[in-house]
Amino acid sequence: MYLELIKKPNDIQKISPKNYKVLAREIRDFLIENVSRTGGHLSSNLGAVELTMAIHLSFDLTRDKVIWDVGHQSYTHKLLTGRKEGFKSLRTRGGMSGFPKRKESPCDAFDTGHSSTSISAGIGMAQARDLKGEDYHVISVIGDGALTGGLAFEALNNASAVKGNFIIVLNDNTMSISENVGGVSTFLGKMRTSKIYTGIKESITGNLRRIPSGEDIHDVISSAKDSIKQLVVRDGMMFEDMDITYLGPFDGHNTNQMIKAFRSAKQVKGPVLVHVLTKKGKGYSFAEANPGKFHGVDPFDPQTGKLLQKQANFTYTKLFSDCMMQLGKQNSNVVAITAAMADGTGLSRFSRHFPDRFFDVGIAEAHAVTFAAGLAVAGMKPYVAIYSSFLQRAYDSILHDVCLQNLPVTFAVDRAGIVGKDGETHQGIFDLSYLTSIPNLTVLAPKNAYEFAQMFRFSNTFQGPLAIRYPRGEALLEYKSYNSKIVYGKAEVMKKSKDTTLALVSIGSMTKIAMEVADRLENEGVEATVINLRFAKPLDLECIRSLKNYKNIFTLEENVKSGGIGEQIAAYLMELRSRAKVKICAIPDRFIPHGCPDVLMKELGLDADHIYEEAIKAAKGLKEDHE
Amino acid sequence: MYLELIKKPNDIQKISPKNYKVLAREIRDFLIENVSRTGGHLSSNLGAVELTMAIHLSFDLTRDKVIWDVGHQSYTHKLLTGRKEGFKSLRTRGGMSGFPKRKESPCDAFDTGHSSTSISAGIGMAQARDLKGEDYHVISVIGDGALTGGLAFEALNNASAVKGNFIIVLNDNTMSISENVGGVSTFLGKMRTSKIYTGIKESITGNLRRIPSGEDIHDVISSAKDSIKQLVVRDGMMFEDMDITYLGPFDGHNTNQMIKAFRSAKQVKGPVLVHVLTKKGKGYSFAEANPGKFHGVDPFDPQTGKLLQKQANFTYTKLFSDCMMQLGKQNSNVVAITAAMADGTGLSRFSRHFPDRFFDVGIAEAHAVTFAAGLAVAGMKPYVAIYSSFLQRAYDSILHDVCLQNLPVTFAVDRAGIVGKDGETHQGIFDLSYLTSIPNLTVLAPKNAYEFAQMFRFSNTFQGPLAIRYPRGEALLEYKSYNSKIVYGKAEVMKKSKDTTLALVSIGSMTKIAMEVADRLENEGVEATVINLRFAKPLDLECIRSLKNYKNIFTLEENVKSGGIGEQIAAYLMELRSRAKVKICAIPDRFIPHGCPDVLMKELGLDADHIYEEAIKAAKGLKEDHE
Repeated sequence: MYLELIKKPNDIQKISPKNYKVLAREIRDFLIENVSRTGGHLSSNLGAVELTMAIHLSFDLTRDKVIWDVGHQSYTHKLLTGRKEGFKSLRTRGGMSGFPKRKESPCDAFDTGHSSTSISAGIGMAQARDLKGEDYHVISVIGDGALTGGLAFEALNNASAVKGNFIIVLNDNTMSISENVGGVSTFLGKMRTSKIYTGIKESITGNLRRIPSGEDIHDVISSAKDSIKQLVVRDGMMFEDMDITYLGPFDGHNTNQMIKAFRSAKQVKGPVLVHVLTKKGKGYSFAEANPGKFHGVDPFDPQTGKLLQKQANFTYTKLFSDCMMQLGKQNSNVVAITAAMADGTGLSRFSRHFPDRFFDVGIAEAHAVTFAAGLAVAGMKPYVAIYSSFLQRAYDSILHDVCLQNLPVTFAVDRAGIVGKDGETHQGIFDLSYLTSIPNLTVLAPKNAYEFAQMFRFSNTFQGPLAIRYPRGEALLEYKSYNSKIVYGKAEVMKKSKDTTLALVSIGSMTKIAMEVADRLENEGVEATVINLRFAKPLDLECIRSLKNYKNIFTLEENVKSGGIGEQIAAYLMELRSRAKVKICAIPDRFIPHGCPDVLMKELGLDADHIYEEAIKAAKGLKEDHE
Repeated sequence: MYLELIKKPNDIQKISPKNYKVLAREIRDFLIENVSRTGGHLSSNLGAVELTMAIHLSFDLTRDKVIWDVGHQSYTHKLLTGRKEGFKSLRTRGGMSGFPKRKESPCDAFDTGHSSTSISAGIGMAQARDLKGEDYHVISVIGDGALTGGLAFEALNNASAVKGNFIIVLNDNTMSISENVGGVSTFLGKMRTSKIYTGIKESITGNLRRIPSGEDIHDVISSAKDSIKQLVVRDGMMFEDMDITYLGPFDGHNTNQMIKAFRSAKQVKGPVLVHVLTKKGKGYSFAEANPGKFHGVDPFDPQTGKLLQKQANFTYTKLFSDCMMQLGKQNSNVVAITAAMADGTGLSRFSRHFPDRFFDVGIAEAHAVTFAAGLAVAGMKPYVAIYSSFLQRAYDSILHDVCLQNLPVTFAVDRAGIVGKDGETHQGIFDLSYLTSIPNLTVLAPKNAYEFAQMFRFSNTFQGPLAIRYPRGEALLEYKSYNSKIVYGKAEVMKKSKDTTLALVSIGSMTKIAMEVADRLENEGVEATVINLRFAKPLDLECIRSLKNYKNIFTLEENVKSGGIGEQIAAYLMELRSRAKVKICAIPDRFIPHGCPDVLMKELGLDADHIYEEAIKAAKGLKEDHE
């Protein structure tokens, strides 16, 4: 009933402190009920309920700027800024995004999606504020997982340049998407178990007395010899080393305690880090027990925590898991690397069977790739599994460390193409462009499950850098009989027409569409040639040359048009002086919002219906058009 | 005379310890003499002479692997591995590279060029060694500047995963290319002035007694309560926090002291950081006094330190410096950001005049860009100046943080195109591909100095993300009269022929070549249309459409072909069903080695001679060809 009182930003101020716990419960119930229906991110949101309340109670978000790192923990923030109705349409086309969006609310200060950006962006805002002589607070909320990203460190290293108040909230739930790894984790582990934290648990008020508050906090804390500092920040040394005031750790499920902490933090001149301990999935037993499962979850039964729909059996991710098991058994030099995506990429099984040959480097995509280069130079056969949109972060490492030295590193590029509900930040629609422009790199995309497995077998003996890109979700089981051997640089002819009316040249996931279009054309008496490229780089120029005299050539790819294979094919045909009419079916030059992949593909004109319409028009309208 | 004894790896072992100082002097004399003649990196090499000697005396580089971060400090390493003769051809086409190259020597363990990769690569090699049960040392040598890069931090965070010996040498010369910035710098500053270091300076032997050596060092150091650890590593806490054993600081110009340090470091199981203090330019007074000038230097008089050739007056870098001064005066919202390239990009003057509005974030390209996004969201007008090849490291920040939110951040992309002597790792030949595939981004390239200034004026009122790419070196002063106003998305017609024989469509630096080709064609009676695109994105499709009926269209760009503007134009013409013969003049799909830019452009067929030959053939051979 308190949640109903909150219809716009700052309405939470109406709630009396004694009712914070009830409100938190109501928010959790609302989130569980809604996410169970729509699907979405749950664990991280349940963990950040009180933290978000405390932020909204401590700051005026119509003026102050909060940057939510990654952003999937922003549901409570959306609720508290009057977007309750939006949860009905969460993550659907035209509906509310699952991430902060400046277009959605003036209280969303910065769009996020990828990890580790919030401190950099926050420093930018704080500097702008100080330059303009404005007066508002900037708060970057970052998880401990995101802290392993190099970008967050680069930002921490620059935080001390901010002379005005700048608050970093470390939302420490002891895990990122999967488990946390590395030195930072060890270090945070030490902080968590420090005496102070034990003290907080025992006696909140007693502990808070030890932390100075009010205007003079900075002076007190600045004094190196002050015993309070020794007590409070001894284990925050890493931050203090970087001239960032450290406060904490605090109980991230105690709203009042955090309000007091923020009151202190506001008084600090310069950067101050507030360390808050939270529990992922808090308040929902199934999520607490299995936060990974409820990280990003499909609709489920809130009573039992069971998913409503049976999960796809044959996802590419699952197949990758199988392939890696095979490769791992066959070749003792095979090692697998991921960046906090062991479950998501399907490497968990490999990690259990070959723990010595598995490396989860944390959220650190660039390091994952350069590390793989080092492994390869020293004789290993590394497989790096990173989602397409996150691999963007390792672009230079792929180019400069792997491809320049022509090293045999294989990239398993999952979530390539339209991923759907996570939206703009997560669509994997650039990789064909940014990968095919890199010398020495070979880029493959399978049409179906069988070809996927073939390609990974091919990778085992391949001597150079190789990327295999494949979509999120269910693996295609059709077209099993099209299984000619993978030969370097060679496309596969799926259908060969007798005449030269129309050829459909497709890559990866779009081969299914090409075949559907061809089948429907056949029903209308039009024969079409269908080429499954297999290799996005190098393109099979001989095969494309054989299409030179076709009247119509359609290229199909689940990638942006600019720099994609369609442009490359069209340019080559142009150089050949082909007179074909070329239609490039690709994603247009804009960011693609959230929504169901089928809906989006239809909207983009990349579904079989739409391409069929264009193809039949081209094939039949051939004569008029030529005149 | 000692240097002459060194003809192959490990020959340095023949030198008696009492002669190390003489050898160091000989090496310095050799480097100064040779670099004064050929040009090259000097300061960093002079600073690392004893460090490199100590490494070669402590390790067997035919087995052990040293990774030189960035790699421009590897000259002494090249000398000590028998590449003395190579200095005659240093950084020329076909000659010795200025960076480590695996192709050049088995003692070059890993190719470098960009910063902050060495720890990641070293961890990879150490893990591979341990998995294979092999027995060699892996040593990553990284500067304090490179340590501010997020990749280095991601690697440090993962270093503790290495169970065998892994040595990180921190070559701390208190500056990167320009001055060091940020928290890490502050922190290292504390370490440098710690009591221990003072002790070392006073009494080497006395101090070394305090540092345990031999097999039990790790046990001793592991014991948290041991007073030796408190003394030695108190200020290395940041590394110890990450489970990396810290040793140091040591005098980086005392070979014997470092040999002892490495003897200790070799005994450590797991990662160990050896902190070494060096002086950039050591032993050459002019370089010591002005290490920035002698970082990468053109030929100079070794007696006076004066450059032999007068420097170009009108470099694009200098013009950028002027433009930024103007913009800074006109618009108080203009802020400038760079990543340790204040001198190189020409921002030093801006930084002196507008210190509050200038931000050097250290070697941290991704942060520079996301930070700029934060500044822009909060109302500033940020200019981010980063070289083309280094901007690769911020690809995702450009896409995800700037362009997705359509923020008015301007990227000044210096060193775009062939940069020459620094070679493969530094060529700026990918930016047109990786930038033009990003939605919302506008990409410009000026043909000459005047257009450059126009474009920066245009940027001042432009509301979205904008990249202006321009080459290293001298700005073109020709074609001054071609100065029509910059209109969004509009190309400039430089020459309009009466017939439709040939059109040359160029971008940026290649417009000069296009005009030269057109002039020579005119002498042969062939009129050609010349289009200066100005906008690589969005392409002026209307202008390109107007060329549809040309017989020949040449596109010219200083960028790789794949994903470049030539392919995009050709694809568009193909979609228009143009029957033009299109020739895409661009950099082929391979990494381009070091050498003089003119030599390289000629070799790549991108000089006026070569393109003229092709053009005249196309124009005159038109009839035969059509049949």
